[in-house]
Amino acid sequence: MSSLKNDRLLRALLRQPVDVTPVWVMRQAGRYLPEYRARRQRAGDFMSLCKNPDAACAVTLQPLERFNLDAAILFSDILTIPDAMGLGLYFEEGEGPRFQKTVASIKDIENLPIVNTAVDLPYVLDAIRLIRRELNGAVPLIGFSGSPWTLATYMIEGGSSKDFARIKTMLYSQPDVLDILLEKLTASVTDYLNAQIAAGAQAVQIFDTWGGVLSNAAYHQFSLKYMAQVVDGLITESEGREVPVILFTKGGGGWLESIAGSGCHGIGLDWSQDIGEARERVGDQVALQGNMDPAILRAPMSTIEAEVDTILSRYGQGVGHVFNLGHGITPDIEVAQVAGLVDAVHELSAKFH
Amino acid sequence: MSSLKNDRLLRALLRQPVDVTPVWVMRQAGRYLPEYRARRQRAGDFMSLCKNPDAACAVTLQPLERFNLDAAILFSDILTIPDAMGLGLYFEEGEGPRFQKTVASIKDIENLPIVNTAVDLPYVLDAIRLIRRELNGAVPLIGFSGSPWTLATYMIEGGSSKDFARIKTMLYSQPDVLDILLEKLTASVTDYLNAQIAAGAQAVQIFDTWGGVLSNAAYHQFSLKYMAQVVDGLITESEGREVPVILFTKGGGGWLESIAGSGCHGIGLDWSQDIGEARERVGDQVALQGNMDPAILRAPMSTIEAEVDTILSRYGQGVGHVFNLGHGITPDIEVAQVAGLVDAVHELSAKFH
Repeated sequence: MSSLKNDRLLRALLRQPVDVTPVWVMRQAGRYLPEYRARRQRAGDFMSLCKNPDAACAVTLQPLERFNLDAAILFSDILTIPDAMGLGLYFEEGEGPRFQKTVASIKDIENLPIVNTAVDLPYVLDAIRLIRRELNGAVPLIGFSGSPWTLATYMIEGGSSKDFARIKTMLYSQPDVLDILLEKLTASVTDYLNAQIAAGAQAVQIFDTWGGVLSNAAYHQFSLKYMAQVVDGLITESEGREVPVILFTKGGGGWLESIAGSGCHGIGLDWSQDIGEARERVGDQVALQGNMDPAILRAPMSTIEAEVDTILSRYGQGVGHVFNLGHGITPDIEVAQVAGLVDAVHELSAKFH
Repeated sequence: MSSLKNDRLLRALLRQPVDVTPVWVMRQAGRYLPEYRARRQRAGDFMSLCKNPDAACAVTLQPLERFNLDAAILFSDILTIPDAMGLGLYFEEGEGPRFQKTVASIKDIENLPIVNTAVDLPYVLDAIRLIRRELNGAVPLIGFSGSPWTLATYMIEGGSSKDFARIKTMLYSQPDVLDILLEKLTASVTDYLNAQIAAGAQAVQIFDTWGGVLSNAAYHQFSLKYMAQVVDGLITESEGREVPVILFTKGGGGWLESIAGSGCHGIGLDWSQDIGEARERVGDQVALQGNMDPAILRAPMSTIEAEVDTILSRYGQGVGHVFNLGHGITPDIEVAQVAGLVDAVHELSAKFH
């Protein structure tokens, strides 16, 4: 079937039996690793690291050299698509992502190209091919993108936002205009993820970082609808295996039933839900990924182990769980705590399989 | 029974019949009102306004002179308790609340006094008495406090926070120490709200602004448990009427069932839940308050009216709904939109009663 030496992640996402629960960590290649900080310093800024396939490959593999993780995730940023559309992504220290140009009018939106990944984002595909070669089948590689809604928030707000005033004004005053932007982004994200799969991504995750700021109705109409269209447009099989898709809406705990109906294989959970209750709500439709609060990694190892055990127990017996944090790991976490977490998941989960 | 001319709010919170759905707006006395900005400028800083009973009374009444609101809410800040404990609350323009001193150790916590409202916060009680006299029974006056957990976050972080690293480190590494702080805050909040009720508050709301950043288990253990203790310690009747208590946990939509079991009369909803689904979940245990996204107030009046109608329809027929925004109104909103909102709630809700 496959030359993968460890296919736990893919099997868990497809709700197939595994020996122990697979684990990976959002932002596992990141600033908590001294070797990452060294690479980052040499590269200069964050986007130079993303745009250099050798560097992106090296950084992707760093956490796998330290920890028994069950997946690699492409080192990149969720905002490569608006950057490729010409908005000029940059990062200010401690400020998060910013764009040189923002999108404010129907004219701005009409002028945006739909992304052709092979032409516009070759560095991402080159990195994927390199990583796959270096991984040599050790674990699967996860590709990813921001969701159409989440990309739109950055493009319209120009960066992170507190109350999303601009995009919500457009949403409630000119919903048809926002739809045109979201349609372009949906086509772009679909092309981007399909190109990642063709280049070697064995699973993909859509990060809907800001879906949770929407009302119930607006989430369904302006975020989930477009994510479902992306899922519907994705290549379903590659290298003889099904390619699972994970949707992660931070703050989306109220909408698990409808997310499960989107056609995705797995749902990323933040830490606000009990994973056992979440499992009852989605039944056997999808796998669940999560859901430890990253803050727990600042606690003593015994507390981390107790929390791992609680999450595993709350999920319970059987298929369909991928262990992860409920959000990205923060830069202040000790490397030893991550090693302990990964080992604890493997050791404590055997009894549930 | 009561000399209140308009008791819709109290009746709705107690799930008694009303002619139309009552409406008030979180932060209704605020920067979107030109007369508020003028008063604020004269007062100097925000806390001077809070600490001057005449000014606090005047500002509390400003929105009632413009709009047909069904309640007044005391003009004050959620952080008066830690200020009275000696932490030195101040506001930096555009920065949100800050404290001169923060709480980091068991020793810091042991040194904190429990607030005796009559002695430590007389300006709040003076303002309440003044407002009641000026209101002269037109509408009820709502008192309020921050929740123990929410107060603790500011006291430990020193202000607003992105990931609540300090308090979560304490929560997961020294939960017993955090409990001591939360117990002191619970006693203080109980005393504070009881003093507000004795001075004339006819309903009270507990703002749990940051309960939603917790995991499911931690929310129950470190926020809801203490709010339930506050509710349990409150005066239940004043001036011959029951005094309803509203709990508002922003981002707490996953926990409505357990919040409803806390003994409160009403639950404040943010905009992430469908209010009809929320009503099904809590049944006839409690009233629901909410839940319009404040961003909708930037849209044309026809959109606002349509959203009001949707929320009223989703709640449906019968008792137990207080209309409100899902969070505080923002400074950029036009006064005319608020007038339109309030009138729309009254006009469109008659058919549901």
